[in-house]
Amino acid sequence: MSTRKELANAVRFLAMDAVQKAASGHPGAPLGMADMAEVLWNDFMVHNPANPKWWNRDRFVLSAGHASMLLYAVLHLTGYDLGIEDLKNFRQLGSKTPGHPEYGVTAGVEITTGPLGQGIAAAVGMALAEKLLAEKYNREGFPVIDHFTYVFMGDGCLMEGISHEACSLAGTLGLGKLIALWDSNGISIDGKVSGWFAENTPERFAAYGWHVEEVDGQDGEAVKKALAKARKVTDKPSLIRCRTTIGFGAPTKAGCASAHGSPLGDAEIEGARAQLGWRYSPFEIPAEIRQGWDARLAGQQAEKKWTKLFKDYEKAQPKLAAELGKRMEGELPPDWQQPLLAYMEQAAKDGGDEATRISSRNVLGLLGPALPALLGGSADLTGSVGTKWDGAKDLIPPDCSGNYLYYGVREFAMGAIMNGLALHGGFIPYGGTFLVFADYAQAAIRLASLMKQRLIWVLTHDSIGVGEDGATHQPVEQLAALRMIPGIRVWRPADKVETAVAWMEALENRSPSCLALSRQNLPVLDRSRTGLAEKTGLGGNVTPTEHVYETIRKGGYILREAAGGEPKAIIIATGSEVSLAVAAAEALEERKFPVRVVSMPCAEAFDQQNAAWRNQVLPGKVRARLAIEAAAVDWWRKYVGLDGAVIGMRCFGKSAPGKVLFNHFGFTVENAVKAVEKLLADGESCPKCGGGT
Amino acid sequence: MSTRKELANAVRFLAMDAVQKAASGHPGAPLGMADMAEVLWNDFMVHNPANPKWWNRDRFVLSAGHASMLLYAVLHLTGYDLGIEDLKNFRQLGSKTPGHPEYGVTAGVEITTGPLGQGIAAAVGMALAEKLLAEKYNREGFPVIDHFTYVFMGDGCLMEGISHEACSLAGTLGLGKLIALWDSNGISIDGKVSGWFAENTPERFAAYGWHVEEVDGQDGEAVKKALAKARKVTDKPSLIRCRTTIGFGAPTKAGCASAHGSPLGDAEIEGARAQLGWRYSPFEIPAEIRQGWDARLAGQQAEKKWTKLFKDYEKAQPKLAAELGKRMEGELPPDWQQPLLAYMEQAAKDGGDEATRISSRNVLGLLGPALPALLGGSADLTGSVGTKWDGAKDLIPPDCSGNYLYYGVREFAMGAIMNGLALHGGFIPYGGTFLVFADYAQAAIRLASLMKQRLIWVLTHDSIGVGEDGATHQPVEQLAALRMIPGIRVWRPADKVETAVAWMEALENRSPSCLALSRQNLPVLDRSRTGLAEKTGLGGNVTPTEHVYETIRKGGYILREAAGGEPKAIIIATGSEVSLAVAAAEALEERKFPVRVVSMPCAEAFDQQNAAWRNQVLPGKVRARLAIEAAAVDWWRKYVGLDGAVIGMRCFGKSAPGKVLFNHFGFTVENAVKAVEKLLADGESCPKCGGGT
Repeated sequence: MSTRKELANAVRFLAMDAVQKAASGHPGAPLGMADMAEVLWNDFMVHNPANPKWWNRDRFVLSAGHASMLLYAVLHLTGYDLGIEDLKNFRQLGSKTPGHPEYGVTAGVEITTGPLGQGIAAAVGMALAEKLLAEKYNREGFPVIDHFTYVFMGDGCLMEGISHEACSLAGTLGLGKLIALWDSNGISIDGKVSGWFAENTPERFAAYGWHVEEVDGQDGEAVKKALAKARKVTDKPSLIRCRTTIGFGAPTKAGCASAHGSPLGDAEIEGARAQLGWRYSPFEIPAEIRQGWDARLAGQQAEKKWTKLFKDYEKAQPKLAAELGKRMEGELPPDWQQPLLAYMEQAAKDGGDEATRISSRNVLGLLGPALPALLGGSADLTGSVGTKWDGAKDLIPPDCSGNYLYYGVREFAMGAIMNGLALHGGFIPYGGTFLVFADYAQAAIRLASLMKQRLIWVLTHDSIGVGEDGATHQPVEQLAALRMIPGIRVWRPADKVETAVAWMEALENRSPSCLALSRQNLPVLDRSRTGLAEKTGLGGNVTPTEHVYETIRKGGYILREAAGGEPKAIIIATGSEVSLAVAAAEALEERKFPVRVVSMPCAEAFDQQNAAWRNQVLPGKVRARLAIEAAAVDWWRKYVGLDGAVIGMRCFGKSAPGKVLFNHFGFTVENAVKAVEKLLADGESCPKCGGGT
Repeated sequence: MSTRKELANAVRFLAMDAVQKAASGHPGAPLGMADMAEVLWNDFMVHNPANPKWWNRDRFVLSAGHASMLLYAVLHLTGYDLGIEDLKNFRQLGSKTPGHPEYGVTAGVEITTGPLGQGIAAAVGMALAEKLLAEKYNREGFPVIDHFTYVFMGDGCLMEGISHEACSLAGTLGLGKLIALWDSNGISIDGKVSGWFAENTPERFAAYGWHVEEVDGQDGEAVKKALAKARKVTDKPSLIRCRTTIGFGAPTKAGCASAHGSPLGDAEIEGARAQLGWRYSPFEIPAEIRQGWDARLAGQQAEKKWTKLFKDYEKAQPKLAAELGKRMEGELPPDWQQPLLAYMEQAAKDGGDEATRISSRNVLGLLGPALPALLGGSADLTGSVGTKWDGAKDLIPPDCSGNYLYYGVREFAMGAIMNGLALHGGFIPYGGTFLVFADYAQAAIRLASLMKQRLIWVLTHDSIGVGEDGATHQPVEQLAALRMIPGIRVWRPADKVETAVAWMEALENRSPSCLALSRQNLPVLDRSRTGLAEKTGLGGNVTPTEHVYETIRKGGYILREAAGGEPKAIIIATGSEVSLAVAAAEALEERKFPVRVVSMPCAEAFDQQNAAWRNQVLPGKVRARLAIEAAAVDWWRKYVGLDGAVIGMRCFGKSAPGKVLFNHFGFTVENAVKAVEKLLADGESCPKCGGGT
């Protein structure tokens, strides 16, 4: 039988060889952490390489994502769908082995990591997911959800602020099944961390309420003992400081920053072969060592045992089992949209003014009872952002039966924890803060989109409408910044009706959505001049409300057609500015200018419609286009081009009542009318050929 | 003489009254912190209300910026240029008293706060500035820089991740003159923090290497003792936990979250009057209490004493005094640009390929020796981002004589600390990380721009050119997100020459600049077809290199004029894509299409040029415009409009060698040529009138 060291060395040489072949990568961390990985995977991890989606598998998060080759080597050796050729293709186009682990690309990779600190924070979300599901679905004799979440992280993760946010909260939440192993090698890219990271991290984590161990990370048996101990501490998360040597085994680079981010070089690898007694050629793993790692049989048996348990559970608890199953598969219950369609119908009848953050809370109140997967929360702005619906239950430890989490003032961790909750399965997380503070969480929102995770950011106080809190609290560039993230959807609904549709779309979208909601009241819009029935092409087969729904969900639509149906100009607006656009169009109509108003609650959805829809809403020949949005102007050139105009924000906001600010910054009917009139006057001559139109 | 409590109550009632009059604001924190403020300002703060810019004043940072009325009340009472009418105008348009403190709006406000955690982090920068200046300029008997930095912060600041990043580093740096008072009231917006913030913060700070005290924050004498003790601890920053009651004095709302963010209401304020024995009407402060706060005479004397000291210092150390003076005034030395102009000339002669991150390091090497105010650093990517120039000296404690700071893996704190360094005066900070990780610091970059602080972000690895590290490390939306921040300048230079100009402009710009730099080599561009001499209007009065400089600094310019000078199409590009644009133009020229290439290293600078320049570079009638940038496409519609095309990124990147990726994502001469040909073909008919051109 192979020794622990031999098993660990297999990881080391696969990492060294793959990095060398790719001529780029990070060998240092895999070399240092190989012993930790060997113990964790061979002695503790419960997983089935044949089914990386088994619900009750232990989760593993490589927070130090640059050590990707460690993970790829382990996945390869334990029997996942990752062959030696895949390792040889490390970091090549289209390979299963990108430079940093990417969720969805590689079987067994639970999460995309690389941006430091976000792995450990997402792991907090995974461990929380386990705890909440166990609390709700496990019954005496039926621990159907019962697994650990393990994390490997480095000094870098611990320097990042998000590690504080997430680990402080994990301590408060008492996440006993979260075990983080710290690759404490004392080296970061710039050299010895003592010059910039001299804190006493174990004491810091003890202050968070964590159980803390310290061991020699190169001593497998010591790591094993610490892991066994940590698993027994059920009321606290555990941090195991594993003192390691970066680049362990490399004769001249071990312990040096130079081992971190570049291939070691052939000579150094040869030296490591000699030093570690590794007699095999590159990418060669002897059968005995393969056998030592092979987790396929054990994994199959583990899942089989659990499957039997779950079948018995299904008999004993059919309702719970069915609900859990749907949650883990991410299914929405049948007819979940019905209450919202009814709400839309009622809203259209009732009219009235309401802030969309309030509409959002009311919509949540209709969704919540039917969607046990919804896990809400806010970064300490619950009342302001309307994330807690009537009937939502507080999740405050030790009572973990609730569905509303108080994240504290931790926007970034909220983002990463939501990512972890979604990745774990069983949850559709949503979280709220002010739109301007999306900046704090930008990097987590990006990762959510890269991983195509369904979660919802509730971002309220979405413009200068914030009012007196002033420039620090008034978003300007945030809408554009979010819209620029590939794959994301940003909804900025204009009234109750669009808010309901935004929520429906966000729940159906298997990627992140952001809802930008107003602090101030917005009127329910008149939709009597949309010509919806003809334009959706649905004819008379659906109800008027379904027509409205089908129209709005397209992201951009004719809210108010120009008199006569032939617009000379188009005003495009979103959210709180749509009613201003309508008022301007009315004023222009009085002056005999036929103007169309397009409501654009979600530009990304609009862009995904077919050309027929897009051209119908924004015909190419109508170049007199005015966009109105209380946000950065430049983004709107995409729809108004060089010939159009934008009423937007060209500077930071100010402190004053919201209505005063809208006036101050030019969001007035008068200005909008003037702008359109100017466009129409300019448009008399063609910008290209100079001729009259 | 007024008692401490009476003095503190003056702050309380000004805060209550102003919030009530504004009908919005945050009374709770000022009420709780009034005693802390009274002790700090009346017993310790060394400042001169008549000169808020006195170099050696103590700095005060209200990290809990929502408590703005506390600060305004104190500034008013101690004698700053802030009258009672200003307090009555709290939160009104154009007032000196915005909802959150804003630097530049109110005399005595050292920093814009409100976004939580950033205040304490910037204070670390201020305290570091003091320490470094003292180290360099103080001489035996001449402590010309010798002041404290005080911070008030709340639970929210301490939950934010940035408080970890900054305070951990502050401990490592041993910033003994940083004293943070924690308004520990146990309440945040969502209620009792014990449900989401149960960590042992004093132990956490002890783990950071801080001196920690705990007192009753409502007991002025206790706070005074703790402050006196903290001031004596010279090798560690101090945290004083002041246990307070939010809304102290409010009869029914004290201790409740409801005191936090809304006016108390007239009845509650009347109740507070009774409870605190305050006999005065709203905004009325009796003379005796005014006298107790008045700091004008003491401030005048303190500055006078220091001025005498500095005059003696000027005699004893004329060189040092002159240098310090220039630094504090933010002046650049005469002729500082000369070495860079010489560098540009040489670069044009030498040609060759070089990554702009390397060019940037070389440029820094030319700037550094003449600019002692430059304080460099990186978030643990020194070698990669090229922020350490030859001759820069490490700043690793206990040796604080260096000018290169290792921030560790703390992007956000780096941003806030740079803000603090710049605000303190004496420094032009620059800091480096990968462009994709600007996301982590977005909120600090925004604040830098809001405060118009001169500092430079060195953001390298600026596209898919990153290569094998993959999607997590490849920026796509970041360039647009930064450009959308009002007031900021983003430079993406295309070669050595533009890199030199970018640095010159960044140093002259009294607002933040971001330099987006390539990982990969870029060729020095041929500038023989720019027609510079005519276009800058400088004629023959300047050298050819000065022409180049004057042209590039305009942000967008004709790099390569179309043959014949009458372009049918324009290709606009930045950074690494400019040479591709040139190659495409050459290929098109061979096919007899006259195409102009515009290099656009800084769109914000270009937009600020006069219409003549802008129209010359991008004539309105040339609508066949192609933008090429390996970043989010939508932003470019601002220059190419609806009729143009963009070769950019419409999704996240991938892991593969950079060159493979450029090819994979369509950044090829072939594609660019095709795109222009299509534009020219489409352009045969007019988009507006449908007629031929």
